[in-house]
Amino acid sequence: MAGDGSDQRALQYEQTLMYGRYTQELGVFAKEEAARLRESGQRRSISDRSRALDLLEYDKGRCAKCRRAGYPYVLEAPARDFISVCTVRCQKFLISRVGEDWIFLILLGLLMALVSWVVDFCIAICLQAQKWMYGGLDSNVFLQYLAWVTYPVVLITFSAGFTQILAPQAVGSGIPEMKTILRGVVLKEYLTFKTFVAKVIGLTCALGSGMPLGKEGPFVHIASLCAALLSKFMSLFGGIYEEPAFKDIGIIGMRNESRNIEMLAAACAVGVGCCFAAPIGGVLFSIEVTSTFFAVRNYWRGFFAATFSAFIFRVLAVWNRDEETITALFKTRFRLDFPFDLQELPAFAVIGIASGFGGALFVYLNRLIVQFIRKQKAINRFLMKKRLLYPALVTLLISTLTFPPGFGQFMAGKLTQKESLVTLLDNRTWAKQGIAEEFDYIAHSQAWKHPQVNVFVTLVLFIVMKFWMSALATTIPVPCGAFMPVFVIGAAFGRLVGESMAAWFPDGINTDGTIYPIVPGGYAVVGAAALSGAVTHTVSTAVIVFELTGQISHILPVMIAVILANAVAQSLQPSLYDSIIRIKKLPYLPELGWGHHEKYNIRVEDIMVRDVRYITLNCCYRDLHNVLLTGHLKTLALVESAESMILLGSIERAQLQSLLSQQLGRPKRLEYIRERATAEKKRLSMVSNLGSEDGSHRASQEVRFQISTEESSFSPTRPVPQKPLKPALKRPSVVERPTELPTSPYDNSGIALKNLFCASPDTEGLEDDGDVEDDMTIREIAEWEEKQLDEQVNFNNCKIDPAPFQLVERTSLHKTHTIFSLLGLDHAYVTSIGRLIGVVSLKELRKAIEGSVTVKGVKVRPPLASFRDSGTSSSENEATELHKLWDRHKSMSLPREHTPSESDEKSQ
Amino acid sequence: MAGDGSDQRALQYEQTLMYGRYTQELGVFAKEEAARLRESGQRRSISDRSRALDLLEYDKGRCAKCRRAGYPYVLEAPARDFISVCTVRCQKFLISRVGEDWIFLILLGLLMALVSWVVDFCIAICLQAQKWMYGGLDSNVFLQYLAWVTYPVVLITFSAGFTQILAPQAVGSGIPEMKTILRGVVLKEYLTFKTFVAKVIGLTCALGSGMPLGKEGPFVHIASLCAALLSKFMSLFGGIYEEPAFKDIGIIGMRNESRNIEMLAAACAVGVGCCFAAPIGGVLFSIEVTSTFFAVRNYWRGFFAATFSAFIFRVLAVWNRDEETITALFKTRFRLDFPFDLQELPAFAVIGIASGFGGALFVYLNRLIVQFIRKQKAINRFLMKKRLLYPALVTLLISTLTFPPGFGQFMAGKLTQKESLVTLLDNRTWAKQGIAEEFDYIAHSQAWKHPQVNVFVTLVLFIVMKFWMSALATTIPVPCGAFMPVFVIGAAFGRLVGESMAAWFPDGINTDGTIYPIVPGGYAVVGAAALSGAVTHTVSTAVIVFELTGQISHILPVMIAVILANAVAQSLQPSLYDSIIRIKKLPYLPELGWGHHEKYNIRVEDIMVRDVRYITLNCCYRDLHNVLLTGHLKTLALVESAESMILLGSIERAQLQSLLSQQLGRPKRLEYIRERATAEKKRLSMVSNLGSEDGSHRASQEVRFQISTEESSFSPTRPVPQKPLKPALKRPSVVERPTELPTSPYDNSGIALKNLFCASPDTEGLEDDGDVEDDMTIREIAEWEEKQLDEQVNFNNCKIDPAPFQLVERTSLHKTHTIFSLLGLDHAYVTSIGRLIGVVSLKELRKAIEGSVTVKGVKVRPPLASFRDSGTSSSENEATELHKLWDRHKSMSLPREHTPSESDEKSQ
Repeated sequence: MAGDGSDQRALQYEQTLMYGRYTQELGVFAKEEAARLRESGQRRSISDRSRALDLLEYDKGRCAKCRRAGYPYVLEAPARDFISVCTVRCQKFLISRVGEDWIFLILLGLLMALVSWVVDFCIAICLQAQKWMYGGLDSNVFLQYLAWVTYPVVLITFSAGFTQILAPQAVGSGIPEMKTILRGVVLKEYLTFKTFVAKVIGLTCALGSGMPLGKEGPFVHIASLCAALLSKFMSLFGGIYEEPAFKDIGIIGMRNESRNIEMLAAACAVGVGCCFAAPIGGVLFSIEVTSTFFAVRNYWRGFFAATFSAFIFRVLAVWNRDEETITALFKTRFRLDFPFDLQELPAFAVIGIASGFGGALFVYLNRLIVQFIRKQKAINRFLMKKRLLYPALVTLLISTLTFPPGFGQFMAGKLTQKESLVTLLDNRTWAKQGIAEEFDYIAHSQAWKHPQVNVFVTLVLFIVMKFWMSALATTIPVPCGAFMPVFVIGAAFGRLVGESMAAWFPDGINTDGTIYPIVPGGYAVVGAAALSGAVTHTVSTAVIVFELTGQISHILPVMIAVILANAVAQSLQPSLYDSIIRIKKLPYLPELGWGHHEKYNIRVEDIMVRDVRYITLNCCYRDLHNVLLTGHLKTLALVESAESMILLGSIERAQLQSLLSQQLGRPKRLEYIRERATAEKKRLSMVSNLGSEDGSHRASQEVRFQISTEESSFSPTRPVPQKPLKPALKRPSVVERPTELPTSPYDNSGIALKNLFCASPDTEGLEDDGDVEDDMTIREIAEWEEKQLDEQVNFNNCKIDPAPFQLVERTSLHKTHTIFSLLGLDHAYVTSIGRLIGVVSLKELRKAIEGSVTVKGVKVRPPLASFRDSGTSSSENEATELHKLWDRHKSMSLPREHTPSESDEKSQ
Repeated sequence: MAGDGSDQRALQYEQTLMYGRYTQELGVFAKEEAARLRESGQRRSISDRSRALDLLEYDKGRCAKCRRAGYPYVLEAPARDFISVCTVRCQKFLISRVGEDWIFLILLGLLMALVSWVVDFCIAICLQAQKWMYGGLDSNVFLQYLAWVTYPVVLITFSAGFTQILAPQAVGSGIPEMKTILRGVVLKEYLTFKTFVAKVIGLTCALGSGMPLGKEGPFVHIASLCAALLSKFMSLFGGIYEEPAFKDIGIIGMRNESRNIEMLAAACAVGVGCCFAAPIGGVLFSIEVTSTFFAVRNYWRGFFAATFSAFIFRVLAVWNRDEETITALFKTRFRLDFPFDLQELPAFAVIGIASGFGGALFVYLNRLIVQFIRKQKAINRFLMKKRLLYPALVTLLISTLTFPPGFGQFMAGKLTQKESLVTLLDNRTWAKQGIAEEFDYIAHSQAWKHPQVNVFVTLVLFIVMKFWMSALATTIPVPCGAFMPVFVIGAAFGRLVGESMAAWFPDGINTDGTIYPIVPGGYAVVGAAALSGAVTHTVSTAVIVFELTGQISHILPVMIAVILANAVAQSLQPSLYDSIIRIKKLPYLPELGWGHHEKYNIRVEDIMVRDVRYITLNCCYRDLHNVLLTGHLKTLALVESAESMILLGSIERAQLQSLLSQQLGRPKRLEYIRERATAEKKRLSMVSNLGSEDGSHRASQEVRFQISTEESSFSPTRPVPQKPLKPALKRPSVVERPTELPTSPYDNSGIALKNLFCASPDTEGLEDDGDVEDDMTIREIAEWEEKQLDEQVNFNNCKIDPAPFQLVERTSLHKTHTIFSLLGLDHAYVTSIGRLIGVVSLKELRKAIEGSVTVKGVKVRPPLASFRDSGTSSSENEATELHKLWDRHKSMSLPREHTPSESDEKSQ
């Protein structure tokens, strides 16, 4: 019996490892197996192996049917071998083909191009409908106003409500969230199908309303959603697209499955690329916006997918007869031979600097609005009750102001965002209309010319009004971005400067005989790139404008303006996305400042948490139990002993839980009962008077089974769902159980723990339940558990990470930041000569960086840092732990005879 | 006396640390000090501190004069305080300003723009001179031929000779070297002023000869040289630009001084940017070509510097009246409204795929030529003797073939590279000349039209001849790149396809009424981008062509062709730069294959070196001495003891050498003599008969001093020059010394070691030499040294890196590669639960990757890997060291009682 039990344990052990292997490196394993099969195709022993492979592959029950169908026929061994080899080969081929990156990328690009085109198409129809309604009611201004206002209010309210109901995660841009996800942090529900639907429909409605909202940010999110869903979908065909990998994204950076992160990064590029038909700009923008460190070897993925996507997106337009051939989205027709005069460059530089201030102001204004609404409790309470009121009110305000017969006539209110942009990039000069016009445009430009008001006034009003409107509109809880509105405002500002220049120098600046009049459209291009670059803190908006306009002749002015705008904006405010990350308090590691790494005079020892939860190699299960009860870290440090504190590795919480469950589980207990049964068979017959109590126990046991059915299969590597677990651990006495039992609170928690942990061993145990009967009383069980808890932990079946990331106490903040960013770490242990002395997590690091960043100029240093520096000689600190160890080493033979408290003293 | 000695040692200790601090974080320290001074400006105690700062700052003797001049005047304390505060403030301000990144970047950009412009100007003059000579001699074909041929032969020979004599490192492109340097490997002499001069002059001559050579690669190198030299130059003003940092580049990745790497990366962008006036393309190209992982926070540096540089470069052209305003370098004038038809896309795709094959062929051909010349020993020996013969012969061959009245007439031989490119990008069709031409071009196109031969034949001949000519020419040992020749060939190939299409569809493909004839120039643009992309394995050549031509209308065809070309070329051959890295055997870590990370089933335990050199915490100086004698690693592992093997840190070789020198140094010996003198004063007078031997000792001592004068200042952190040391260590008996002394070889080495190490303590010791006389005999010294060597090492004064990078044995190759690339590691220790079991260096990693990469498809795995997998159950390996440790832990109380050999058994 005991031998049977150990066999069973061995089997469990193998399953554990198989499972571990399965999730971690199925690809490797499958390919290895396939290669081995190919090599030894003729060999006899193959069938066993291939069957083992089959078993492994379909272990998740996905194709259990096939297996069942395939194996009843008893074939002769060689024939069976041949067939299995063939099947395996075919499967491998299919998997390897479907698993190729480029197929995935092509599918992703295709899908996103279609989504982008459909969304654009729907938005165009929505906007046309509004115009048609507005145009049809031109007999009555009031009706016209009603139509003009009601339409967007309804659309925005629907969008807000729909998103709120279906998936609140779809609200907003999505770039901050993607930035966080690509950093390696799990954001639940951000990559689900629900979110996809909510985002696409919500975005279409929001943009269809004509509000000053953008499409770019949401498209980054939509593309990532597409990639995640496509990956899930393709996992039905191949084994490479593993769902767990996406779930596991938090620790992905340290595993081989960086593939998903790479794909998500490519998806971000696709999002921007197919939104603007700007493949290069899309790739660069997505890199700048979402990444901290970029692996150049993944560069091609983004380019490939974004180019394909942009291509299909534009081809769709050609097939739809919107365009004659593939051209830029907002094509300009500037002079090629003399795009701008050298003496115009100061004006471009002025645009850049002003845009820098404007961009910072926009970010500030946006944050101010959000914080104002949050802080004003009266407003907040009211808005919380009527969640759709805020969007409706904002929309009403904005659409009232843009009503064309009303105030809208002074700010080109009747133009949609796209029309405004087209007119702003026009190569004709508005201020002075006397130049021969070669091209014939649609006369949208008329909207800018009010009979009574100067075109400059219109432009200024447009800029000012749109500025706060956009900042306000992007706070509406609908899927929306801010890039496009900012882009249009920038273009308008550039146009304003350009028109002023054209009015100032009617015949151009050039004095060399030939007259080259100033092209205000060029200024608009520069302004658009500069302002959007300032708001997003990116340089690649320059590339985006070239791709959007189809002309690169203004490259130097654009680059100069964008760089100046970035320099100004980055020194004043965080980027819009970082600002939203702060507002939403997303778990993102902020960047260190521009090249001023030296000013962060903080070391790990100043920020680390010294009170580390750890388990020792020779601990008993009770210690394990206590550690699990008191903390809720995802991983725990394993040290050699409490005295030496030598760090040996880290163990996941789930592993420890499964260890405990094995120790306190039903199989173990049944084994114990069996043993006891053989010894006490006679005495057992005498205690028949305890039957009634036994019945109550059975009832309680049923309840317990009910609680624990969530865990249906025994898989130590799979994390135990935290939600039902945590409250049980924290409030052990609340757990449902018969209250008449007079056990101590400690026993309760033990049983409660068992109830929650022992689920799967229970179900397994049920199978061989026939020979022994679980007739222990609760009291007996508690006693037994007490005994079990005092045993030493057997770490043999436990997956231990033998190399958790380690830092030393004197590691600088800059280096820590770099390592955390590069490797996507969640936490790192601080060791001193192998001894664990602290732990640093993302939280501490963020606090430290923000503490230094928020107060500009003056360093805010933690007390320990200043204490350290105020010593008479800073060099004394260089006498590290090691030297002390050495000194100790000289004085006594065993260097480990010191307590952890001693080390705390020292490191201060 | 003993107290004096320990004081002195304490001072040395402080100096050590100060020095350490100085090199590592002077910037931090200076800023801290400045801030503190500002805060406590009125305080009394400041003068001491500021003087200490001064002392620290000018400790290198750079401004020793100033210090001497400044301090003789004895001022009153407050006044002196005030002045010193002011001086310090001014200095700090200047340093902080000069130290700003953007000033450095602006200067770099300016400098490079000037260099680029001057080089271009000189090249143009050279080419004009050749044309003038050739044109003036049109009466006699033979004279014409002589002039045509002699001119380039002379220039190339001069260039080759000049480079060879001044700095052979300047030969070739420079991108492979920069890639290696940015990876973190020290390449001596690659960033010196000599190399700069050789590269600039050599490049000018080489390009002035009219050979098919490029300017891009060398310009990347020149820009990096500029950055390095500028950094040196600016270190005269500020303390941030530290020379040692550049020297120390090997371990820079792990230190805070990543700044220099960042600046070099920016310099590479500047190089490309100012070469083509393509800031965006320059940044992207340099990233793709030189980086593995790119920190997005450094993105702006490249853009800033490259934009500024490109701007100045083009402004210079305007000021020189070459251009009217800032425009693209090779401006095209393609149709804007209908750049290409959708149905032309297959032709573009064909260009892409063909370019992919062509690019791979080019790389292969280039490598083949180099290898052929290397292998043919007869040729090789002959060429080695007459080093300038090979360049001359190659130039003669190429210029003979391009002689315009000869074969050159069939391949547009009289056009320079630039002229060819301009004509190839022409927007007129050559095949059918009947279209109304709006623009009037310089009639270089005539060169393509031979009266007897079709334009297609000319183009084909041009492509074929230039192809092998370029591949051959780039093997000439002059500073030259291959980008531009390849670019021109690509353009010619595109033109060929375009002309064919134009001939096939004379009225364009579009069937919608309007006739849009095919623009062969657009095909040339696509071909140029595709072929150069294929050769360099980059996507950013697309951006470069847009910036070069000033038109972005062909973005989709270009992107499609570039991606296809990359896909084909990358699957066939390494990039040209990687190929050169392999040919030159540069210490670079190759990339893992495209997305097939799973196939590298190698773990660290398979590739690591198990026989690690280490020192123990309780070792004696003799062990140190032996370790230094036997190995020549830059850093050594420090373990707790040979039994436990717990890794405590790593120590640099130089540190150990200084430890040894301190132990065996003259001050120590003098101290010993002093002690002995007090005890044996009487007996000393009796041994006057040893005078003659004493004399011989003195002679030998002089010799020793002569040997050791290289080390003029005591600086333990500065690495001791390796060259004179190594032979002495390896062949101890060869060291120059009086041979009559009958000492054992071991003693010799001890003395030799002392001679080499004790230089600076000797010079310091000379100052207080007055009170005691060094009257020990060689034999006595040897005995004394023996005694000294048996003492235990005092690690107190030693700088120990307490956190060398650690891996575990089961770390996968992919993860190891990622970590090495990300952190720029040189080596990493392999530990198992804190125990040192091996070391992996770049070399092993490279071998492992190349072993897997070269044999396509089939994995070449090291024997250990296959051994591991062939076990019946692969899961047994999961029972890691830790579990064994646990088992041991159960069986015995002390877990460390095993020998290293035991661990070796286990891990196999």
